[in-house]
Amino acid sequence: MFVVKYRKFEVRGFEGMNLYLRSMNIPETKLPRVVIVGGGFGGLRLASSLKKIQVQVVLIDRNNYHTFQPLLYQVASSGLEPDSIAFPIRKIFRNQINFEFRMTEVQEIISEKKTVLTSIGELKYDYLVIATGSQTGYFGLKNVEEKSMPMKTIPQALDLRSLILQNFEKAMLTKDVNESEKLLNFVVVGGGPTGVELAGALAEMKLHVLPADYPGLDSDRMNIHLLEAGTRLLPALSEVSSDSTLEFLSGLGVKVLLNTAVQDYDGELVKTNTNNDLISATVIWAAGVEGAMVKGIDGDVPLRNKRLTVDEFNRVKGYENVFAIGDVASQTNDERFTKGHPMVAQVAMQQGSLLAKNIKNILLQKPLKAFRYKDLGSMATIGRNKAVVELPFMKMQGILAWFVWMFVHLMALVGWRNRAVTLVNWMWSYFNYDRGVRLIIRPFKK
Amino acid sequence: MFVVKYRKFEVRGFEGMNLYLRSMNIPETKLPRVVIVGGGFGGLRLASSLKKIQVQVVLIDRNNYHTFQPLLYQVASSGLEPDSIAFPIRKIFRNQINFEFRMTEVQEIISEKKTVLTSIGELKYDYLVIATGSQTGYFGLKNVEEKSMPMKTIPQALDLRSLILQNFEKAMLTKDVNESEKLLNFVVVGGGPTGVELAGALAEMKLHVLPADYPGLDSDRMNIHLLEAGTRLLPALSEVSSDSTLEFLSGLGVKVLLNTAVQDYDGELVKTNTNNDLISATVIWAAGVEGAMVKGIDGDVPLRNKRLTVDEFNRVKGYENVFAIGDVASQTNDERFTKGHPMVAQVAMQQGSLLAKNIKNILLQKPLKAFRYKDLGSMATIGRNKAVVELPFMKMQGILAWFVWMFVHLMALVGWRNRAVTLVNWMWSYFNYDRGVRLIIRPFKK
Repeated sequence: MFVVKYRKFEVRGFEGMNLYLRSMNIPETKLPRVVIVGGGFGGLRLASSLKKIQVQVVLIDRNNYHTFQPLLYQVASSGLEPDSIAFPIRKIFRNQINFEFRMTEVQEIISEKKTVLTSIGELKYDYLVIATGSQTGYFGLKNVEEKSMPMKTIPQALDLRSLILQNFEKAMLTKDVNESEKLLNFVVVGGGPTGVELAGALAEMKLHVLPADYPGLDSDRMNIHLLEAGTRLLPALSEVSSDSTLEFLSGLGVKVLLNTAVQDYDGELVKTNTNNDLISATVIWAAGVEGAMVKGIDGDVPLRNKRLTVDEFNRVKGYENVFAIGDVASQTNDERFTKGHPMVAQVAMQQGSLLAKNIKNILLQKPLKAFRYKDLGSMATIGRNKAVVELPFMKMQGILAWFVWMFVHLMALVGWRNRAVTLVNWMWSYFNYDRGVRLIIRPFKK
Repeated sequence: MFVVKYRKFEVRGFEGMNLYLRSMNIPETKLPRVVIVGGGFGGLRLASSLKKIQVQVVLIDRNNYHTFQPLLYQVASSGLEPDSIAFPIRKIFRNQINFEFRMTEVQEIISEKKTVLTSIGELKYDYLVIATGSQTGYFGLKNVEEKSMPMKTIPQALDLRSLILQNFEKAMLTKDVNESEKLLNFVVVGGGPTGVELAGALAEMKLHVLPADYPGLDSDRMNIHLLEAGTRLLPALSEVSSDSTLEFLSGLGVKVLLNTAVQDYDGELVKTNTNNDLISATVIWAAGVEGAMVKGIDGDVPLRNKRLTVDEFNRVKGYENVFAIGDVASQTNDERFTKGHPMVAQVAMQQGSLLAKNIKNILLQKPLKAFRYKDLGSMATIGRNKAVVELPFMKMQGILAWFVWMFVHLMALVGWRNRAVTLVNWMWSYFNYDRGVRLIIRPFKK
């Protein structure tokens, strides 16, 4: 059944496995097929860990690239090109012969038929892994969802980059003080790493880009507010780091409002639970994430935050051959994480690695290994020379932490081209106090 | 009348000049105002050459960045990030105190009132310079205009990049041979530098990217056709260069069809004036350019290709204070260029430089200097290691020409950040036979 034109799938073995529908033009094989939905940190790690295991791996994603989400805020704030934090998925798997990629969107899973319905055809699986990650959550605030800017994808970050720069351009034109205040007031909602890092980057634009590029604008009129509903910033980190972060951000001129939750936003007025309502044309919503669910998988899920409940082997509760890893999975057996693991890249990658081994164990009919998260630490950067880093063996703040942050993120990028281009941009920004790519390539229209 | 918050316009002098409407929030000044429409090669050169002349320079452009058009084809073929060939206009003029930028689109010129109407307000001028460049021309072929892909702006090049990659992805999915032939057949129309360079880049994708990224596709089924209505490629260069170019392209597998003009295209069938009709989902139109006219200036223009007829001082015929430079201007007094100068960056830049001097001469009531184009040479690259270069004192082809081409283009880019990022990408592509940014960030929809 081996189709000659495909130079892949020279691997044989596992005789007697079923053959597959070919509506997605994927070559037939006698190997069991693992279908992975989503090319994020978890999906990629799983797919590459399956390299030497005798399965056919099919990865599907709506984009043809992997997004390095931790640096999205730098795209939004004109610090990095979008192409530096994206990497073509096909390129990563060039040399993996048991791998196929299809760019498409999943419509529904028909688990009784072991089939994925997509916008371009059906796909049969033996094992299905849902690695769809997370999406912005709004806690039911419809107006906020409609009027605020999310920042979870590259097009969203580019829209935000355009909008920030369009606001500056518009503020140059108005003689109405209220109008210009509205345009230059930026409200970032959510005191997690995304909100903290973006607020810091906006503050640096105020300090270094605005006065030079827009001498006609009084940069004192630009205000950055960071709103956090809880009692401290970066709640996942220690109080020491929260305190440093607050100090660093205040030093940059960011107005941090703790214990402040957004209740409504009409595109102009940000209503909060305190008396402190704000006027702003731009609210950036980094306050909530929820699992990116897939239609058709609904055992005893969703549990919380729209995450799929999985067992210690990342098997979705109620399903035999369906797994979920990363942000979309909620694994509660670990006594340290009874509400599920944090939605971070490290969890997804570690679960991907282990699941590859467990799929091998299933095929070899060996016992499976339970997942146990090894926390490698957390970090966030707050503008030039400042960051907080917490590693298992030490905590640090300030310039040394900043270098650690840069090194870790540079190395975590996929591919040397992306690393080199990112390094050029960072060095440029560092020595010039500049953000080089403040381009409105496609203007944002609400 | 000097408004304090503007730290610009400390320059004084030229008493008695008129004051201006401030609908675009541009600070008042007693200096005469030069309004430049368009931030291309000509507009930028003019604006910076006016740095030390006692005028107020206002540059308007619909984008907030300058586009380095000669490398657009590399964006379209996934070789360079769009952000490498764009440069924020405000950044260029950071230190020029007599300069203002406004991002807007010109709607009409009211020359009797010395006013430019824009989408964001009115603008008075003393001297107006039209530097709007050129746009794609279709010789009245409506279907071609609707169905083919132009490549004159960064968004257009990005759309083309997406479409090429989407075609590959779609071709992976189809089992219909005709459909896949249509998707993998690329027709480039126009044998000038843009067409030649893009055809070469597509050929390199066929040779190096397609087999590695899409092992399921037979790369022999990808065909690149380059159609030229005239008898030779690069008609602006010598026959030696044309011959080398043809040889280089044929060596890369490009099917060059000379004496072949497109008559119609319905999105599928390319009808030509020969019997050789082609089936293709993707026609890239690089066959025609015409001046990008501005409403309201219509003396004895348009003459030819919608270019404004100007005298030897680049003054638009019939107007006292309106000038045009670059692609949009047709200057026929030079016996070498009785049909106007070639529409290239060098002409625009040289006209911009001279016009700055002539504006100074006007202000000082000195005689004006006539423009005389100094041809510094032409060049085009055709894939890896191959280019043709014609300088005033020598012609060359092959690898040395290729290095000259790279050096000249790298140096011509605005800003060190762009140069460094471009160099990283070129080195990456060279050593890896790769094109790093094959990303479908925003899918193209017809």
